[in-house]
Amino acid sequence: MIFRQLFDTETSTYTYLLADNKSKEAIIIDSVKENVERDLQLIQELGLKLIYTIETHIHADHITGAGDLSLRTGAKRVVPKNSQVECADVVLADGDELKFGDYNIKAIHTPGHTDTCTSYLVDNMVFTGDALFIRGNGRTDFQNGSAEALYESITKKLFTLPDDTFVYPGHDYKGMNLSTIKEEKQFNPRIKIGTTKDEFINTMNTLKLVNPKKIQEAVPANLKCGKETNHAV
Amino acid sequence: MIFRQLFDTETSTYTYLLADNKSKEAIIIDSVKENVERDLQLIQELGLKLIYTIETHIHADHITGAGDLSLRTGAKRVVPKNSQVECADVVLADGDELKFGDYNIKAIHTPGHTDTCTSYLVDNMVFTGDALFIRGNGRTDFQNGSAEALYESITKKLFTLPDDTFVYPGHDYKGMNLSTIKEEKQFNPRIKIGTTKDEFINTMNTLKLVNPKKIQEAVPANLKCGKETNHAV
Repeated sequence: MIFRQLFDTETSTYTYLLADNKSKEAIIIDSVKENVERDLQLIQELGLKLIYTIETHIHADHITGAGDLSLRTGAKRVVPKNSQVECADVVLADGDELKFGDYNIKAIHTPGHTDTCTSYLVDNMVFTGDALFIRGNGRTDFQNGSAEALYESITKKLFTLPDDTFVYPGHDYKGMNLSTIKEEKQFNPRIKIGTTKDEFINTMNTLKLVNPKKIQEAVPANLKCGKETNHAV
Repeated sequence: MIFRQLFDTETSTYTYLLADNKSKEAIIIDSVKENVERDLQLIQELGLKLIYTIETHIHADHITGAGDLSLRTGAKRVVPKNSQVECADVVLADGDELKFGDYNIKAIHTPGHTDTCTSYLVDNMVFTGDALFIRGNGRTDFQNGSAEALYESITKKLFTLPDDTFVYPGHDYKGMNLSTIKEEKQFNPRIKIGTTKDEFINTMNTLKLVNPKKIQEAVPANLKCGKETNHAV
């Protein structure tokens, strides 16, 4: 497999490019509009055929590059079910799978940061979006977020994956690039094994975070795949 | 192998932590003083025994964490030969190797950014420091830098490694995390195959870069392993 973990320095967002080395079919998870030219150049240099742009959720901190990437490559725009994204070509419910080359990507509905947040499992890697971070987790105070739902998502769905599953988050703010399910079960200060649901809810409800700078702009734009208007692929 | 690519957001420096999963012996390449607590916590959580701190060169943009890491873990401080680092425990010349667990790390002298710059080969990964970047290369205008030497280092030493060798650079400023020798031979705009030595020297000599903000502080500090005073391990 070809695998690249790309970074947006302004919003500390990780974008993931995965491709089958034989067929060259590729997917991109959580692209960022400002990095579309960088990503297209890499896709072209590696000789890849982008077939899906995939979102873990409707982002509040950045605008997706999905619409632009789709326009330029013909890739289908994939979002979690019930995301209210009219321009989506494919919606994935819990357990749904897509293929790229010889690989499968499987949707795991992990609500809590938002109500439609979805993680994606590819081989021994899980892309957790804003559900589970490295030694942290996504906030739960807007977009129908729910600390209780996130507790259930992390402890009952993500923490039941094999211990050696690599965790690739949607953001990191401390310069860490990956973790494992085993590590997060042991060391995540917010939700390691032994943390009760009430303790987690209390932690999340007392964070007093300010809203992301771009939330008013990003959410409506992301409901349109980052484009002002829809388009036919 | 346990492998982590850590990032310093202030200076866009990559720090690499590698360990043998069986013996837990670990090395760290190009640590950053400000991130020592983060790195020590990760080393402790993963149950690793840090045996070497390794520098690709004497950095001008940040202060190494080697001295602090060595003090806290007993790791030996490793630098390239002729680096004038009095506190070094081990110096490596071209071709020298060290072991950590079942793995070897081999020094490849790649001068040009500085006169002692060294890349390190571990399995199919090469850690290129400030010699070769992803679609770029290190500057050559201070610390006995030489565009001619860098051209020779990249084209005769790094570009003769197997095509599928992964390139892990000392910095990246565009959110890219890795490349391959094949890609850099094909796509590096400064020095891809076909670039003449004169063209490369001309490119490097017309960059007109300002000095790194910390150069006056960082270089002397790094000659002391990032510590004011030497210490016995």
